[in-house]
Amino acid sequence: MITVNIIGSGNVAQHLISVFQQTEDVMLQQVFSRHRENISHLLTDNKIVTDFQHLNPADITIISVTDGAIAEVSNQLPYDNQLVVHTSGSMGLEELNPKNRKGVFYPLQTFSKSKAINFKNIPLCLETEAVNDYAILENLGKSISDKVYKISSQQRQSLHVAAVFSCNFVNHLYQLGNEICEENKVPFEILFPLIQETADKIKTLSPKEAQTGPAIRHDQKTIEKHLAFLDDENKKTIYTLLTQSIQHK
Amino acid sequence: MITVNIIGSGNVAQHLISVFQQTEDVMLQQVFSRHRENISHLLTDNKIVTDFQHLNPADITIISVTDGAIAEVSNQLPYDNQLVVHTSGSMGLEELNPKNRKGVFYPLQTFSKSKAINFKNIPLCLETEAVNDYAILENLGKSISDKVYKISSQQRQSLHVAAVFSCNFVNHLYQLGNEICEENKVPFEILFPLIQETADKIKTLSPKEAQTGPAIRHDQKTIEKHLAFLDDENKKTIYTLLTQSIQHK
Repeated sequence: MITVNIIGSGNVAQHLISVFQQTEDVMLQQVFSRHRENISHLLTDNKIVTDFQHLNPADITIISVTDGAIAEVSNQLPYDNQLVVHTSGSMGLEELNPKNRKGVFYPLQTFSKSKAINFKNIPLCLETEAVNDYAILENLGKSISDKVYKISSQQRQSLHVAAVFSCNFVNHLYQLGNEICEENKVPFEILFPLIQETADKIKTLSPKEAQTGPAIRHDQKTIEKHLAFLDDENKKTIYTLLTQSIQHK
Repeated sequence: MITVNIIGSGNVAQHLISVFQQTEDVMLQQVFSRHRENISHLLTDNKIVTDFQHLNPADITIISVTDGAIAEVSNQLPYDNQLVVHTSGSMGLEELNPKNRKGVFYPLQTFSKSKAINFKNIPLCLETEAVNDYAILENLGKSISDKVYKISSQQRQSLHVAAVFSCNFVNHLYQLGNEICEENKVPFEILFPLIQETADKIKTLSPKEAQTGPAIRHDQKTIEKHLAFLDDENKKTIYTLLTQSIQHK
């Protein structure tokens, strides 16, 4: 049985609270939240703590707060020499106060409060400062997910940047596509099967092999037609830059 | 029973040949290909034509060739006053020779020869010059797909541009994400669930509502960290431009 404390009440914290309460080999011991009401729908009152001094040591303490608050929160913990991990994709181990043993427990997924998540398929990127601590963090990870990876801080940073390109920026391109459809009174949903196929393809082909469209074909006629069609300068600039980037790979 | 001729032997033509042969209400009459061997695995010899003069009139003739060849092929047809459509997303009705009645039958999906396609879910964008011709083209569309849309040339052009943003450019961003992972020896597959979730989300939220990440949060610290992490000028430029585009929406 692994005992766990969670610090925080945001999206990730709430999903972790839910999943650990349903996990046999994990005992969710205490959850710290400045505002009890944020999480009172998720667990019994006696497990909620609003004062750091009331926290008791646990095998693993998971700090799931905004990046900027990790350092301060780790200073406030009233115990030492415990394993304390944060859930951030972009922060290093040095954010954590050295009075405790350090690690990272980073679930690579977008969480929205309203949508239930199946943790089994969420990749967990784990790291510990001390080699000896890895096994217990790995046990915790495997208790909720089938996809547990040992990832260094440098690698995690690269994943975070790669996720911005492959997800945040991708979503923005969906938005630009949606705008073009709306301006021309075409339902955006016509593009859904193609969007799905594009996301599926890279599971069997590398993205480089999967590339299609006028840019990779060097179909200058169509490219010029598209640029003439676009009347928004921002879209024209993005179209030109991404076309060049495809052609120069 | 609708009789159909197909002109062409590329990806789209081959998929159309396969699906029409399995469709009860459609009689695939003749297929023109300059090279018989391109399609001899798909249909019996007597249906393959390598000389335009051997084509007989059909209810609908589908010209499925590269954009640049549509005009010439439509000139070569040995009949007139039949319904003749092309399958291009970016070409107008004016490409087609006016000796026949004109239309467009544009399946909005990426086709690869090796991968079987379920046509039921492929959006078909249909257009005819004469109002009276729409019903028969719609019948043909509905015989193979559940998603048939009446789309004007201007709208089809907008869809084509939107598809470049939402699919071709999206795939390129997957490629950049993949490169970042490879450079840091992280398996790209760690990002697959997030990529899938990003593609799924827009079916229930608008892309604007679904936007997450450092750009929309105006998280300047993380943005600067990411830019410092990237050592490739092209990736830096794309990161900066797309971040600005997200923030100015």
